[in-house]
Amino acid sequence: MVHIEVIKSLAQKTDSKIVMAIVDGLGGLPHPDTGRTALESARTPNLDALAAKSSCGLVEPVGIGITPGSGPSHLALFGYDPLKYEIGRGVLEALGVGVELERTDVAARGNFCTVDESGVITDRRAGRIPTEKNRELVDMLRKIRVDGAEVILEPGKLHRFVAVFRGEGLSGDIEDTDPQHAGEKPKPAVPRTPEAERTATVINQWLDRARAVLRDQHPANMVLLRGFAKHPDIPTMSEAFKLTPAAIATYPMYRGVARLVGMEVLETGATVEDEVRTLRENFGRFDFFYLHVKDTDSAGEDGNFARKVEVVEEFDRHLPAILELAPDVLVVTGDHSTPATLKAHSWHPVPFLISSKWVRPDRVSGFGETACAGGSLGTFPSLGALPLAMAHALKLAKFGA
Amino acid sequence: MVHIEVIKSLAQKTDSKIVMAIVDGLGGLPHPDTGRTALESARTPNLDALAAKSSCGLVEPVGIGITPGSGPSHLALFGYDPLKYEIGRGVLEALGVGVELERTDVAARGNFCTVDESGVITDRRAGRIPTEKNRELVDMLRKIRVDGAEVILEPGKLHRFVAVFRGEGLSGDIEDTDPQHAGEKPKPAVPRTPEAERTATVINQWLDRARAVLRDQHPANMVLLRGFAKHPDIPTMSEAFKLTPAAIATYPMYRGVARLVGMEVLETGATVEDEVRTLRENFGRFDFFYLHVKDTDSAGEDGNFARKVEVVEEFDRHLPAILELAPDVLVVTGDHSTPATLKAHSWHPVPFLISSKWVRPDRVSGFGETACAGGSLGTFPSLGALPLAMAHALKLAKFGA
Repeated sequence: MVHIEVIKSLAQKTDSKIVMAIVDGLGGLPHPDTGRTALESARTPNLDALAAKSSCGLVEPVGIGITPGSGPSHLALFGYDPLKYEIGRGVLEALGVGVELERTDVAARGNFCTVDESGVITDRRAGRIPTEKNRELVDMLRKIRVDGAEVILEPGKLHRFVAVFRGEGLSGDIEDTDPQHAGEKPKPAVPRTPEAERTATVINQWLDRARAVLRDQHPANMVLLRGFAKHPDIPTMSEAFKLTPAAIATYPMYRGVARLVGMEVLETGATVEDEVRTLRENFGRFDFFYLHVKDTDSAGEDGNFARKVEVVEEFDRHLPAILELAPDVLVVTGDHSTPATLKAHSWHPVPFLISSKWVRPDRVSGFGETACAGGSLGTFPSLGALPLAMAHALKLAKFGA
Repeated sequence: MVHIEVIKSLAQKTDSKIVMAIVDGLGGLPHPDTGRTALESARTPNLDALAAKSSCGLVEPVGIGITPGSGPSHLALFGYDPLKYEIGRGVLEALGVGVELERTDVAARGNFCTVDESGVITDRRAGRIPTEKNRELVDMLRKIRVDGAEVILEPGKLHRFVAVFRGEGLSGDIEDTDPQHAGEKPKPAVPRTPEAERTATVINQWLDRARAVLRDQHPANMVLLRGFAKHPDIPTMSEAFKLTPAAIATYPMYRGVARLVGMEVLETGATVEDEVRTLRENFGRFDFFYLHVKDTDSAGEDGNFARKVEVVEEFDRHLPAILELAPDVLVVTGDHSTPATLKAHSWHPVPFLISSKWVRPDRVSGFGETACAGGSLGTFPSLGALPLAMAHALKLAKFGA
């Protein structure tokens, strides 16, 4: 696969516009009764007509046989090698609850837990306290001040929260304080490298104060932190590809991943129609748009084949409104497959189409897994999607002379 | 291609079972009279029916245009990059004659040769002495003892034998003692690195004693060693993939390569029927089975198109017995192509099918080179075969979140 440095050296700023529509978990497996996937079962006249004029293929998010999480699968489509740029667990959680991370932040997952009088953990999840109680306790913990960092807390569901340590010179190389089983005391934050020593001191100061604040609470009288991770050292899409990118996505995690690579995250509504309106309203201001459709993935994860079909059809209905804007390049694909029969992400390659004045069309006349397997682009790494889109938008100079 | 370390980090132990049937030299070229390859000429109703329910494609063992030996082509299918893990010549020869190599062994190919009174080589092959004489001489040489290593000898055909030096701290970085032409004296074993000095001393001691033992023999009165190689530093399939693998193969070299990657090599008979019986009898004890069919390759090497067709048909007849065991994943492919028209291994990609509950079937309705070229898996590196099989057996966790 072409290295990001090569693409960077060829990238040129132009007025042309790219829309990359990522229909989450788009790929699937055949329904046992019909032999057709959800995408193949959906009535998609607009996608089919577009596919007939496009180059089609299948994308493989991380590698053959690899089932990707949403973080790596999106990074790959945005042009970043997911094996090189890993998003740590704490960072992903922070993005998921909508924390706007800065580049020096260190994030961790938190649990409220129960400890006995000697400080030994009796329940790692504090009896799964109600979310409402969680919010109250987080509000109490927000009053804690420590030296050398601002601490940002965001409640999650039940006993879960996210802690973000903000300040210069912090490191994510910190061992979990969660011993992973009851019967032990919470561990202190232990640095894995000398550079992380000061960070550990900051976190331990915060943990001591949290213990004091929660002392009289029950059952949630202590906290455990794990998955410490720093914001990845990743170039923005502006730095790497000379793009001015915008994200149109409703779920926090996807908005967060987009922010991670330097996209401006636009306010939008909950439906595909809202998202397309946001695209139209902002079409003049950017040259790359990431438009995310979430509900295909949720339907797949729920095993709801019919619902997945519906969401694909909903997207298809709004496709003409996207085409009306006449982007120079339109890519329609997914970040990974989520077959409703498997009720989970999967390793199967994902249908991909690219529409532009400069495509070499193929024999594909409908948008689906089997059709795209016969497309002219073959099966290729998702990491190729962005260079391909930029090429068709005439945003990549010639390599060599 | 995905790095072995990534697969290792995702591998998880499950009860699901994978059978990988490697039909040696499976791929071919069209018969000039019919335009069909041996595989396409064979009557294979069972393979064709299976292909119709499977995902199909072509695998490329080492890289485009590269004709592989059996060692690298098997390693690739077992999940090991053949460009990274090289099996030295001496090791391959030792495996080929059935020596059970240990991880610290250094192996070399040996020739009996003829030297004159001043020790100069007059015939590098000692007039190609009969194999019977070879055995006698090897028995004599087996009595030699040296300091620092056990020496294991195994006669080959005519003037050839294998020498294995067994002991701790030995190195394979030793120059050939064979000068490659007559008119010179055999060279001493010369170390290429300081670490190999002691090994060279051990080998030279053995060579001196071999010279003394053979002094009065004629024409085989000396030996030449070449292709020194240490057992490769390769993780076992258990270490790398959390598999409990077994090998069912009749030829020593394939049994040896399987042992190299930590498979348990099962006793079996000479026919496909015997091999499938062995599979059935051991099906409960392992979660990965390598089943090797050799005679397709031998027929190809012999230029015997009709015989290759027969062997494919023989395999096809026993396929239902494999399917009756209901493995979670069945892969049928070859390690490389051996076209009968070429009478040799070739670089052409090899038909591949994977059958499982979780495959996305394609339009391939028969198992053959041309049909598989239109399969949904496209043409992909053999190195992807194992990750793909593990994915379909649900033995790989999600990458990232």
